[in-house]
Amino acid sequence: MRKKVIIVGLGNTGRYTLKAVKESGDFECIGIIRRAAEAEFYDGVRQYTSVEELPVRPDVAILCIPSKSMPETAERYLKKGINTVDSFDIHGDIAKTVEKLGPVAAKFDKTAVISAGWDPGSDSIIRAVFKALHPSAQIYTSFGPGMSMGHSVVARSIKGVADAISITLPLGLGKHKRLVYVKPDGSQTKEEIYKNMKADDYFAHDPLEIEIVEDVTPYKKPGHGGLVEMAQGETKAEFKMTVNNPETTARVMVAAARAALRMPPGAYTLIDLPPVKMIEGERIANIKKLV
Amino acid sequence: MRKKVIIVGLGNTGRYTLKAVKESGDFECIGIIRRAAEAEFYDGVRQYTSVEELPVRPDVAILCIPSKSMPETAERYLKKGINTVDSFDIHGDIAKTVEKLGPVAAKFDKTAVISAGWDPGSDSIIRAVFKALHPSAQIYTSFGPGMSMGHSVVARSIKGVADAISITLPLGLGKHKRLVYVKPDGSQTKEEIYKNMKADDYFAHDPLEIEIVEDVTPYKKPGHGGLVEMAQGETKAEFKMTVNNPETTARVMVAAARAALRMPPGAYTLIDLPPVKMIEGERIANIKKLV
Repeated sequence: MRKKVIIVGLGNTGRYTLKAVKESGDFECIGIIRRAAEAEFYDGVRQYTSVEELPVRPDVAILCIPSKSMPETAERYLKKGINTVDSFDIHGDIAKTVEKLGPVAAKFDKTAVISAGWDPGSDSIIRAVFKALHPSAQIYTSFGPGMSMGHSVVARSIKGVADAISITLPLGLGKHKRLVYVKPDGSQTKEEIYKNMKADDYFAHDPLEIEIVEDVTPYKKPGHGGLVEMAQGETKAEFKMTVNNPETTARVMVAAARAALRMPPGAYTLIDLPPVKMIEGERIANIKKLV
Repeated sequence: MRKKVIIVGLGNTGRYTLKAVKESGDFECIGIIRRAAEAEFYDGVRQYTSVEELPVRPDVAILCIPSKSMPETAERYLKKGINTVDSFDIHGDIAKTVEKLGPVAAKFDKTAVISAGWDPGSDSIIRAVFKALHPSAQIYTSFGPGMSMGHSVVARSIKGVADAISITLPLGLGKHKRLVYVKPDGSQTKEEIYKNMKADDYFAHDPLEIEIVEDVTPYKKPGHGGLVEMAQGETKAEFKMTVNNPETTARVMVAAARAALRMPPGAYTLIDLPPVKMIEGERIANIKKLV
């Protein structure tokens, strides 16, 4: 029987998640949760404004909402007896979130997979493999150029900003710069917006450049990419991926949802999951195909 | 306390395994098992001709012997109550070996990690991640150019061969050719050796070329490499690694040994292991560093 998924939030990632769920043979989407659902159905799936309205309990909720509200939302769903998957991308808070959600998940006999995107996410698996291979090797991760969904969402919430797009530019060996296209709301100067943005942990650590524009739409592009590199002695390894940002995030979350239903209760990141558990089908058959 | 490792076999891979064990903070090598140990110690480690001679039971045996004898040796060690790790590289027999060793491991409350090299091994993890990301994507793995240890060992056992080195040449999109430098023993013609080699499953599937030489030594080089590629829609991903073949195999086995001691009883491949379990140190600390 197909496992019952609900999608929480229907932005770009939510829509791609629905597509990925529909392409899976082992999942069905039984509902979309949105703050304000304009229509009864979206693409054949019933929309609800609250999980309480669902006629049956879903197996897993895939959270396609801003990162900042993910930990709290995951906790709320776990307490309702629903497994959760999210793509929480605030690197500095991941371990803390695992430690916070772990006991909640265990208490309610559920699983939570945290930070299941491409970075953090599939790139994290690569870093773990590199670290396992060469404990003392330096590992560098570079992003972009591409739009960061997480940073764009945060940039939009900054005082003085009406709309924004944050672009990640790689500076080499894991260093980056943030270029943010801002449509101001008129309440703050460019300098004030810069200061407000720098005060947020998302923008505190990398060089920041703000460009004031009338409309951010032309800068909205889903293409992105990552490069994870390691070199140690005679071993050189690199993992390079170019992605459609919300689509790849969605696909990783659906794979993580599959693993969530195959793990004992607890909170996990992608490096806690046996990769075979993320793949549709039977274990031995997948070992035959992939090992 | 450091976990007690024994190394079974002391060829190139065995020697690199000893080096990797010595560099680990959580392992100590308490013995080397060799058919004929010429000296009492090798590099400070006691050598034995049988595991029964060891004064204490090791936690894990790392098998650095030819692939063909690995499954049988692993089974023997499991039955003695010792966890095992090997780099079994006969792709077509991996799933079968997992199914055979699984119940033995479970019965003796032990773990066996099978095929823990770089391919099968770390490359298998990448293929599993690609498959999780894009269930319908074509995944291509290419090797070389480089010497295949497994194929070289088998080539040496072929009737008519005194010594041999097998080189893997990539033909693109996962296709390969085998070039084998053979020093004949005089009992067979080149054509007979070709036929004998083609009859072995290791050489049955790829184009084969044999070159007769007086000495294979100049062709013995540890450098090798692998490329795992996937492309599907807007996603393009590749994992490229150049390695010192026996060194990287050794390092993967030591990482797998670590995971073996952290898994419930059973037989596993690398795609069955949470990557974090292969890394020295505490889980949450590693999540902080790597996710």
